[in-house]
Amino acid sequence: MNEGEAVYGPLLYEGKAKRIHATDHPERLRVVYKDDATAYNAAKRGIIEGKGRINAAITVALYRYLEDEAGVVTHLIDAPAPAELIVRRVDIVPVEVIVRNRAAGSFAKRYGVDEGGALDPVVIEWCLKSDELGDPPMNDATAVALGFATEDDLAELFEGAVAVNEALRPYFEDRGLDLVDFKLEFGRDADGRLLLADEISPDTCRLWDLESGERLDKDRFRRDLGGVEDAYREVHRRIVGEEPR
Amino acid sequence: MNEGEAVYGPLLYEGKAKRIHATDHPERLRVVYKDDATAYNAAKRGIIEGKGRINAAITVALYRYLEDEAGVVTHLIDAPAPAELIVRRVDIVPVEVIVRNRAAGSFAKRYGVDEGGALDPVVIEWCLKSDELGDPPMNDATAVALGFATEDDLAELFEGAVAVNEALRPYFEDRGLDLVDFKLEFGRDADGRLLLADEISPDTCRLWDLESGERLDKDRFRRDLGGVEDAYREVHRRIVGEEPR
Repeated sequence: MNEGEAVYGPLLYEGKAKRIHATDHPERLRVVYKDDATAYNAAKRGIIEGKGRINAAITVALYRYLEDEAGVVTHLIDAPAPAELIVRRVDIVPVEVIVRNRAAGSFAKRYGVDEGGALDPVVIEWCLKSDELGDPPMNDATAVALGFATEDDLAELFEGAVAVNEALRPYFEDRGLDLVDFKLEFGRDADGRLLLADEISPDTCRLWDLESGERLDKDRFRRDLGGVEDAYREVHRRIVGEEPR
Repeated sequence: MNEGEAVYGPLLYEGKAKRIHATDHPERLRVVYKDDATAYNAAKRGIIEGKGRINAAITVALYRYLEDEAGVVTHLIDAPAPAELIVRRVDIVPVEVIVRNRAAGSFAKRYGVDEGGALDPVVIEWCLKSDELGDPPMNDATAVALGFATEDDLAELFEGAVAVNEALRPYFEDRGLDLVDFKLEFGRDADGRLLLADEISPDTCRLWDLESGERLDKDRFRRDLGGVEDAYREVHRRIVGEEPR
């Protein structure tokens, strides 16, 4: 039986945008992407029609590119059905890694700067992965002192984040998209290897059209800008190169 | 004319706890400590009787100790009158340096941990000095990318903060006080030297009695614990060794 035929095992986790099921293989999980959208720590909720399939397909395309072209090891194993991925089971490091090429969103607001300013150096932030606490940013010493990560973890996360950013910026630029900022999550598999997990999609990136500056990401939903589905479909078209299944 | 006789020049700045006047010497300022107390970014206001004199005297004692015993260069020149210091004029680096030996206050709340837990490594945080923005914490790359400090500034701030902490922890311990956390500000003088500026006092430190755990600092005011004046006087007694003038 190949992964595509794996039975749906017990539901292990249901988050804001995904469900995770066990499979018949102990080190493999089935991720089912949902159309549900939330923002501002779930204070705002809605549905983005087709988002599950679109984000799964974009993640597959980006993770295969990162594996093949940038030497980034990811949790992705297979994509057996629309909106479904088979991934390697990992223990998620409870540190969200935010990579910021330009000031935008909560960062611009927090420091009182305009959105869009280029950041040099690129800002890589750690946020504690905690919906309850609102994912607060933290520095290296805090993450280590509170036991959320080791110094070695942070060094690997930093290296991984830089590698992803350096690979994705030109990739998106070739597709007319400015990679403003994005969130990554990493986890360790049974062998202790650090893998890129979660997803990279318009839910987790800010992507601005290079020509028009138009936002082609979840900010359209967060800020009620309209054209949410069209933006997700446009990013899918530029990355995956076909209409969403 | 010595500094003690300097005339009160124009008021250059009035903050929550201090007024700063020019003097007849262009590189020297007169700092007048006030009894006014504020907390939670000035949402809470009050008066702590005698605080101005107490904090000035504690700062003088600590800054002389740091200069003499720890090689830390400070802005302090003279203490001509109760509640008044003559200091070297500096351009303040707009980065508040927070040193945390134990989790407490906003830090404990932000990360959902109990107050009092020892932090290893010691956490040194940068916060953007901005009342308007609520002094948000920031990491090294953010401070540099947004132009609040250079990499070299941050290295010097870090080194200064470690030196102050390593000198003050045993100093306070000898006086029955646990130095839980504290805030420092640094500035550059006309020659470009980085000096420890501002103050170190129960307004800017958390100090817990080593025996009883009792809080002997501004948290008594912030949290309406009562005995505010007594706590400031007790710290003064242990540091300065006499009743406040």
